[in-house]
Amino acid sequence: MIAQKYKKMLEGKSVIRELFDFASKRGAEIGYENVFDYSLGNPSVPVPKEFTQTMIDMLSTKSSSQLHGYSPSLGIPSVRKKIAESLNERFQMDYTENHIFMTTGAAGAIAHAVRSVTVPGDEVLTFAPFFPEYHPYIDLTGAKLKVVPPNKENFQINFTLLEEMLTDKVAAILINSPNNPSGVVYSTETIKKLAELLSKKEKEYGHEIFIISDEPYREILFEGVDAPYVSKYYDNTLSCYSYSKSLSLPGERIGYIAVNPACVDSDSIVSMCGQISRGIGHNCPPSIIQLAVADVVDLTSDMSIYERNMNLIYDKLVELGFTCIKPGGTFYIFPKALEEDAKAFCQKALKYDLILVPGDSFGCPGYFRMAYCIDTEKVERSLPALEKFVKSEYGK
Amino acid sequence: MIAQKYKKMLEGKSVIRELFDFASKRGAEIGYENVFDYSLGNPSVPVPKEFTQTMIDMLSTKSSSQLHGYSPSLGIPSVRKKIAESLNERFQMDYTENHIFMTTGAAGAIAHAVRSVTVPGDEVLTFAPFFPEYHPYIDLTGAKLKVVPPNKENFQINFTLLEEMLTDKVAAILINSPNNPSGVVYSTETIKKLAELLSKKEKEYGHEIFIISDEPYREILFEGVDAPYVSKYYDNTLSCYSYSKSLSLPGERIGYIAVNPACVDSDSIVSMCGQISRGIGHNCPPSIIQLAVADVVDLTSDMSIYERNMNLIYDKLVELGFTCIKPGGTFYIFPKALEEDAKAFCQKALKYDLILVPGDSFGCPGYFRMAYCIDTEKVERSLPALEKFVKSEYGK
Repeated sequence: MIAQKYKKMLEGKSVIRELFDFASKRGAEIGYENVFDYSLGNPSVPVPKEFTQTMIDMLSTKSSSQLHGYSPSLGIPSVRKKIAESLNERFQMDYTENHIFMTTGAAGAIAHAVRSVTVPGDEVLTFAPFFPEYHPYIDLTGAKLKVVPPNKENFQINFTLLEEMLTDKVAAILINSPNNPSGVVYSTETIKKLAELLSKKEKEYGHEIFIISDEPYREILFEGVDAPYVSKYYDNTLSCYSYSKSLSLPGERIGYIAVNPACVDSDSIVSMCGQISRGIGHNCPPSIIQLAVADVVDLTSDMSIYERNMNLIYDKLVELGFTCIKPGGTFYIFPKALEEDAKAFCQKALKYDLILVPGDSFGCPGYFRMAYCIDTEKVERSLPALEKFVKSEYGK
Repeated sequence: MIAQKYKKMLEGKSVIRELFDFASKRGAEIGYENVFDYSLGNPSVPVPKEFTQTMIDMLSTKSSSQLHGYSPSLGIPSVRKKIAESLNERFQMDYTENHIFMTTGAAGAIAHAVRSVTVPGDEVLTFAPFFPEYHPYIDLTGAKLKVVPPNKENFQINFTLLEEMLTDKVAAILINSPNNPSGVVYSTETIKKLAELLSKKEKEYGHEIFIISDEPYREILFEGVDAPYVSKYYDNTLSCYSYSKSLSLPGERIGYIAVNPACVDSDSIVSMCGQISRGIGHNCPPSIIQLAVADVVDLTSDMSIYERNMNLIYDKLVELGFTCIKPGGTFYIFPKALEEDAKAFCQKALKYDLILVPGDSFGCPGYFRMAYCIDTEKVERSLPALEKFVKSEYGK
């Protein structure tokens, strides 16, 4: 029987997709370089040259079966070991390869993490503003995503509302810091307070409450930002990572889950992920990409461009009178729109060839997202358009 | 809550894994070249050199975002188009890119195909002997796999038993031709008869019965074999393909679903697969591998080695008195063991450093599988060991 559930999902229109289509169409008219497209989170800086070189070297010297043979279902052991060692060095953890499960990016990591520590009917809490794909990611596992409303003061966690929603039904908390779309990084204070609350509730309810920490932007941090490694502060943590942003490899689908060695069942969660894979058709990220990433495990693309872009945009927004939390990382910023209806605001911006995304689908109406993973030169050219938009439409 | 379902799955031991471990251990003692390891279906012939060259060329000349940028969720349009054209040329079909969904190999293809044309509670039928992973592949979707017992005469379909089991609850038939583990290819007569029966039952029950055709061995065919393209004979067919065997790329996780243009809902099944992906964390096969495969879409590795190996083994088995259907393709052969308990038979073979896999987990006790994707020279050296085993243990 045709699965109507998925057919019905086709009716829902993606706002980002519509904006992207508009940008493409407008680009065909006036040249894409003249469309100030802040809609998509596709990294604009190139992959490190060392990655490309290691790929070419391997292709030139290694045998077909060494490069392209089946990877064990948990990932290539030498790759998992290198990742564990790198995390231990950077964050003073005690991972071994047995705590690392290789995944097809953060989406694959979350798919396995949620299935391993929840059962259908369990609740998973996340915090607005949040990445809208969390809904299908969680809801299609049979667990239920509930969204804690935003703390609009600073986009840290709203602990009053969290405590109200943290019932006995909650099996996991899904956090994303540095955050898409706000760019905000949860402070050590926030993470400590979260860990304390969860520990208290674990005792009260007599069951674990896991943190699933979605960390694709972990390497994109701006100067002076307090950026704690979440798993250090809470044992029952599964860290979900992707190289999509840090190495500018979003198309190659590579990432991992790192299970805290002190987590409940830490000795079996990675193997359980291998079983989950059999049911969802995952079967490891590509072997050649696993090998190449392991070779450049401590490198990143040049992230300084994102900070430069952020500063340019943030300063202009503040100058124009926007209410805006300064991002601590990522390549997103999430200001308050100049009218209540952010959809109307973003619609008006299109007239100035500015592609902005309304915050509604991020669980935060009245705000809008700008993804500034674009050339700095284009950011600079977009600022007069932003000013013209604000002055013409809002008389500021 | 820790998902006990997956934790319990860890208790089940894989026979193939145990044999593989034995082979590794024995290899450390006497040298792996002296262990006649017929346990694993890992392609032994190298990837075509054109694939490696196209990878190196792309890495040397294309930009980071061209190579490693996000692939659209259904796959890269130019890649899907090339695959559709190649299938049309080879099999006189009418696919467009809208009928092709890029997947992470056949496992990923089946994960999407089953979810798109069944709902939890539906039954899916397959035919023994069958690939044991079909159980987690299907059962973890919520549908239920039922196995039609084998037709031991020729390992074609047992139509009498199929008709008995083909109740109103059946939503799909999962076939695998050329077959793992038997090496048998379903004849045009078999496929026509299957199509007729399914069409009759579709009318009787008033709902579709889809064929999910798992075809990773489609390109490994031996001389003179009648090998129909299943989808030509039955409209409601989803063909699941993998380049793992044809291009010797099992680690790179690349394949596709081709939906017959005349299939019910053929205009939405591929888009539905895109929605399914969001829930299972799939998000496309690696972009660089998609691009490289499209460049060598009509090539295969040198498959002649598998036929040479098959002939050597088949002739020896017949000479030694085994009952054995001659394979029409793949790199598997599935003879009858020389005692009722194939596990005991395979256990005894280990004394002669022969690693054979009992047929029990393939739904066909009393038989055993040999995966002859190994060097021909090793096959030749294994034949005296096979003879010694049979004569010493069974006095033949």
